[in-house]
Amino acid sequence: MTEELPRARQRLFVHHAILPGGEIALSPEQSHYLEHVMRLKPGTAIKIFNGLDGEWRATITELRKKTGIVTAETRLREQVFENGPILAFAPIKKQRLDFLIEKAVEMGASSLQPILTAHTITGKVRLDRLHAQVIEAAEQCERLTIPEIHHPVKLSDWLANWPENSHLLFCDETGGGSPIGDVLSRLLAKDAGSAIDNVNVVNHALVIGPEGGFAPDEIDRIKRQPFATPISLGPRILRAETAAIAALAVYQDRIGDWTARPVTRD
Amino acid sequence: MTEELPRARQRLFVHHAILPGGEIALSPEQSHYLEHVMRLKPGTAIKIFNGLDGEWRATITELRKKTGIVTAETRLREQVFENGPILAFAPIKKQRLDFLIEKAVEMGASSLQPILTAHTITGKVRLDRLHAQVIEAAEQCERLTIPEIHHPVKLSDWLANWPENSHLLFCDETGGGSPIGDVLSRLLAKDAGSAIDNVNVVNHALVIGPEGGFAPDEIDRIKRQPFATPISLGPRILRAETAAIAALAVYQDRIGDWTARPVTRD
Repeated sequence: MTEELPRARQRLFVHHAILPGGEIALSPEQSHYLEHVMRLKPGTAIKIFNGLDGEWRATITELRKKTGIVTAETRLREQVFENGPILAFAPIKKQRLDFLIEKAVEMGASSLQPILTAHTITGKVRLDRLHAQVIEAAEQCERLTIPEIHHPVKLSDWLANWPENSHLLFCDETGGGSPIGDVLSRLLAKDAGSAIDNVNVVNHALVIGPEGGFAPDEIDRIKRQPFATPISLGPRILRAETAAIAALAVYQDRIGDWTARPVTRD
Repeated sequence: MTEELPRARQRLFVHHAILPGGEIALSPEQSHYLEHVMRLKPGTAIKIFNGLDGEWRATITELRKKTGIVTAETRLREQVFENGPILAFAPIKKQRLDFLIEKAVEMGASSLQPILTAHTITGKVRLDRLHAQVIEAAEQCERLTIPEIHHPVKLSDWLANWPENSHLLFCDETGGGSPIGDVLSRLLAKDAGSAIDNVNVVNHALVIGPEGGFAPDEIDRIKRQPFATPISLGPRILRAETAAIAALAVYQDRIGDWTARPVTRD
């Protein structure tokens, strides 16, 4: 019984398959973090996950000079399919982008799609940096998967390649949309009534514009897509990262994984 | 008709009554901001609000050496009562606290209550700093009111003084709560069925614990209150500021001001 063992507080994403008794090499950064930041010793239990094999309890068996090895012991949680919405967003300035990324992971976005729009401030997106942030946030919030970060694409190209039978909800700052909760409730009713959607996973995307909003021709272009629905996020003007977190929260509450019974934790 | 006038882009909170034709002195900071940061000249239109008289179009009539005067012209929006929930939160570290404050304003919290708990990291809260942030966020997001920031109080004292007929929803990280959306829907049904609540405004508070969560005896204490309901924010561990924004989003969507038809903007 794992309850009698001391609780594992550290939680790391690993890039290897996890099997009972299997030894897994940590990265130099992870080894450094455990040894010098958290000051852990061999024999200490941690949690590991790889996005495929669930979450495991593992014991540090070697830890010195930026080399760390952990040995997997018992599976603590089975892998689950974390089927959150895709978050499409126009890159914003550094600190606010960091925040948006961290929060999108916490809020259960399944993948992140930077989109380039007329008013997008930052064309250059450092994907390696975002990827590291995504992993850190996933470790922290106890997710079992790491959301994928797609390469930035132009809004028009992204729309042109969007699968027709999937839904795209875009935050329309001009006020043309219905309240997000109403739209999601209708979507839930529609999905439930569709035989196809019980077999194929339906992709939903939440689309957040840049600071300054979409350009008028961009809004027209999105609205013309048969799969796109404009939504409203209330009477106040929200910053891009606020809109992203808020839309994800309402999504998870209305049709996402917040509707299930919560996990009980000690 | 205001449509024919150039759009006022700057929006400032002022501490004076606003009457048509009335002259209003700006603070030295506001004057400096308009003159040297935004590089505006006398004759430029801005928007002003004071939390009581709605939102007004005003023209800068004097602006030099940290002295600025604007003249109120026409009311653009009538004052409304922004009846959002109270957000009670344990102060967290600087950058994350800044974020929480800004987002709480954008999400329509009616007031902010710092609460001191067993695991609260920061005992000292600089209210003057938070107040400046609240005003800036309110100007930015087009609110008509400025949320009040209460003095920090101990959780136990705050609970002891909470009005019995008001509701308190607290985010229970141990997983003991029902999904927040379910709880809010029940609350909405209950409030609608109560004759008293049609006369008296019902105060709702959302309570977010510190990083590390409430202590077990704090959770017991909150749960014992007849006005307190534990809620769940899904299967992931959310940081305190994420929980605050997410809970406010679901609140506004389920029973708050996001349910009304959105404001149309150009």
